[in-house]
Amino acid sequence: MSENISEQLQYLFEPRSIAIIGASNVKMKWGYIVPANILAGGWKGKLYPVNPKETEIFDRGVYKSVLDIPDEIDLAVVTIPSQHVVPVIKECVAKSVKTCIVISGGFSETGGEGTELEKEMTAIVEGSSMRLVGPNTMGVYSGPVNLHALMPPVRPVAGKIGFAAQSGNLGTQMLSLGKALGVGFSRFVCIGNEADLKAADYLEYFADDPATEVILMYIEGLRAARRFIEVARNTSPKKPIVVLKAGKTKAGAKAAASHSAALAADEAVFEGVRKQTGMIEADTTEEMLDIAKAFAAIPSPKGKRVGVLTWGGGWGVVTADALAEHGLELVEFPEETLKELDSVLPPYWSRGNPVDLVGTLDLSVHFRCLEIVARCNCVDSIISLGTMGATSSFQSFVLEGPLAEEIDSERIKPRVITPEFIKELQKTDEAYRNEVIRLMEETGKPIIAVSFPTSGSITPMLARQSEVVIYPSPERGAKTLAALYEYQQFLERTLAPTR
Amino acid sequence: MSENISEQLQYLFEPRSIAIIGASNVKMKWGYIVPANILAGGWKGKLYPVNPKETEIFDRGVYKSVLDIPDEIDLAVVTIPSQHVVPVIKECVAKSVKTCIVISGGFSETGGEGTELEKEMTAIVEGSSMRLVGPNTMGVYSGPVNLHALMPPVRPVAGKIGFAAQSGNLGTQMLSLGKALGVGFSRFVCIGNEADLKAADYLEYFADDPATEVILMYIEGLRAARRFIEVARNTSPKKPIVVLKAGKTKAGAKAAASHSAALAADEAVFEGVRKQTGMIEADTTEEMLDIAKAFAAIPSPKGKRVGVLTWGGGWGVVTADALAEHGLELVEFPEETLKELDSVLPPYWSRGNPVDLVGTLDLSVHFRCLEIVARCNCVDSIISLGTMGATSSFQSFVLEGPLAEEIDSERIKPRVITPEFIKELQKTDEAYRNEVIRLMEETGKPIIAVSFPTSGSITPMLARQSEVVIYPSPERGAKTLAALYEYQQFLERTLAPTR
Repeated sequence: MSENISEQLQYLFEPRSIAIIGASNVKMKWGYIVPANILAGGWKGKLYPVNPKETEIFDRGVYKSVLDIPDEIDLAVVTIPSQHVVPVIKECVAKSVKTCIVISGGFSETGGEGTELEKEMTAIVEGSSMRLVGPNTMGVYSGPVNLHALMPPVRPVAGKIGFAAQSGNLGTQMLSLGKALGVGFSRFVCIGNEADLKAADYLEYFADDPATEVILMYIEGLRAARRFIEVARNTSPKKPIVVLKAGKTKAGAKAAASHSAALAADEAVFEGVRKQTGMIEADTTEEMLDIAKAFAAIPSPKGKRVGVLTWGGGWGVVTADALAEHGLELVEFPEETLKELDSVLPPYWSRGNPVDLVGTLDLSVHFRCLEIVARCNCVDSIISLGTMGATSSFQSFVLEGPLAEEIDSERIKPRVITPEFIKELQKTDEAYRNEVIRLMEETGKPIIAVSFPTSGSITPMLARQSEVVIYPSPERGAKTLAALYEYQQFLERTLAPTR
Repeated sequence: MSENISEQLQYLFEPRSIAIIGASNVKMKWGYIVPANILAGGWKGKLYPVNPKETEIFDRGVYKSVLDIPDEIDLAVVTIPSQHVVPVIKECVAKSVKTCIVISGGFSETGGEGTELEKEMTAIVEGSSMRLVGPNTMGVYSGPVNLHALMPPVRPVAGKIGFAAQSGNLGTQMLSLGKALGVGFSRFVCIGNEADLKAADYLEYFADDPATEVILMYIEGLRAARRFIEVARNTSPKKPIVVLKAGKTKAGAKAAASHSAALAADEAVFEGVRKQTGMIEADTTEEMLDIAKAFAAIPSPKGKRVGVLTWGGGWGVVTADALAEHGLELVEFPEETLKELDSVLPPYWSRGNPVDLVGTLDLSVHFRCLEIVARCNCVDSIISLGTMGATSSFQSFVLEGPLAEEIDSERIKPRVITPEFIKELQKTDEAYRNEVIRLMEETGKPIIAVSFPTSGSITPMLARQSEVVIYPSPERGAKTLAALYEYQQFLERTLAPTR
């Protein structure tokens, strides 16, 4: 079955036609919301509402059954209550529908009768060529064709990350957070109960999918572990797989059992599998996007030697600690590099790594120091603290509250950082961003930025992390760099010619 | 000397009069920027510019020397180059100035001549009753009197956290981040080179300061370790001390040596001291505010049993893992609590902890579940996922890009989440916030919220974390709860009557 999984799932992620089984005019029903999301999202295929009791939905004629539609159906989306699903699935099979998403809950996750219904449904699907997502799923997203077959009305940014999640809520909220941060997705699927299609199937599809460059997974437990391991092992050398494994602890496993009904793998076992297959671990939900966005945007370091640029000594110390804690090395610069930096920095600079830019507001110094460090053969990667995204920090200074009343603000003008200065800074921010991209292309080394949005609003530059990445703390930046390096080491081990 | 440290430092944090030595009309000079910050910040005392070459600065007459000022000076702020500082300090002592901040760098942090200058200056101060901050400091902030004697033009929110930082850059940026997040400070001091006043002195002042309820410290190394330990031991039973110790690793210690010239304490030694004195560790820069804001806003849990409310099973699983990893317990509810929840939730709810609110948009259900869980004797603290701050998440759905062009948006109205719905949600958000405050007051149990700002803008509610706290991930919420509990355990050990 798995030989043609990519062909089969192509109908799911790039359908030409969709039937909505349970389509509705009632706004609070999923039969309304899901097709509304699809239509509003800009997908260009043919959409057929199915509902025995309606005549017109979304300006379209309604079919009593999927069997009545005079067209081939690539994808059926089922939103009706679980007890009515089985006959509809039979009709879909009879109609030779290619793929089917069962949004409806009330199956094995509720136990008892639901489990029986799911078994019945699975048996029908197994005897057919139709592939089924769910049940109990929030649906799929597909960037290349603007398909938003999703329950929540989230519209992600299109990008390079293929994402499969064993939790619809967590998954779709990650899409939403990605949107706020400018982190884009190629495909998303909420795995659901895995009655038919399993996590391994989506992984295999992502592995071959030209639109996907990085794979992200949220996993509570594996239902077809052996196959998953095999697919992961084959995929990792081609594309990085970033995985958050939830249900690691006893308490977590128990919560997972009542949520996804997935059998949580023993933590030690999963950790062994992860290392062996080259999957990269996200320890926290924040790290899911932290790490995935880096794989999607920047190269991986070829070694562990890091050069750091900082505006302030304290941040440099924190970064040095974080690098050491993650097995990376704050490299000692050779004398020639120190001399190059001498020519740019004031005489009292600390002549070491991190390079303390001693608070200078003259950003041309930052540009020159970045280039010197990036081009030095002594470093494999660079962390640039504070410079990129500085606009956001400075904005917080400008956007302060009103002056004390009795002060004559025109006369005192205490705001040395003026709106004009901010405009200049925004231009510099953009220029620095372009410089980072240029240097990454020319040197093949990753450059990551750290800068927190103290103004409370994310700057336009922050909101497009498709070519550069920016982190709100040095610790998160260092952790991500370590993850990139771990993958690089896996590749070298795996792809090295056997002697 | 330490008996009256609180009296002495009261002149620093609440001065009635300030002399700016090196005051200037040149906008890019610190002699302009620092007094501009002070005047713009709303401090109500008398400000005297001192500069032998000027006649008027900020609309005020200028004195050639501090000795010429016909008033007592509580605080002198020195911004002139290091080589001219010593004579000025002599004058300050002669004038009986109470406290002095030496902003200027170029002292022991640069070694050589700078170290000699610092020794000379220290000798003068030691023979006097004047106390000195710095040198090489970014200054102080004091909320109760709106004093912003700072180099960067940051204007923090006034609050309950007293903060001493061995890095001006990191320290003032934390103030800025706090402002964006609605986290307020009572006092801030950039410790600088500690020629006279040491970290321990500020700690002692904060311990007695009625405006300070929580103490936050960024420490690279201790110059008077024995006294610091003594003061910390005496302070912890009164107020929580949250500390980030940087320079833990070899690389970090080396970076610290060249930054603050502070001798980094051996990590194991510091960890011993920390536990013994009851200080609470922040592992990362993000945790500094995460933990400090919680101590400032909510009660500490009396035990480790946690109740969790969630909109989605996946988040519940992640939270369960995070609690277990930090030694907290996802308690099993007694049957009577489950029955109470039965009466509110739909029949298919999972009857366990985390309480899965099964995605309901009817927030009244959330209110009732929160109250049931908070009032249950079986829990010591509550984590509420998604509800508080939900406005922000939902905004991201409403604020989506334009519809696909060919879609008739008036007719299709795919936006089931309308602006009116958001307005309702904002009201509910506010009501939920008030309910959380009421329940914390009535039960004495901490309730923490987790919700990330997916819209990219922080909601008004997020921006006032003085009575409630909100975290962008369950992992950070759980870690904070564990920190609060650690402090509670310290208090119980320390304050328990000896049998």
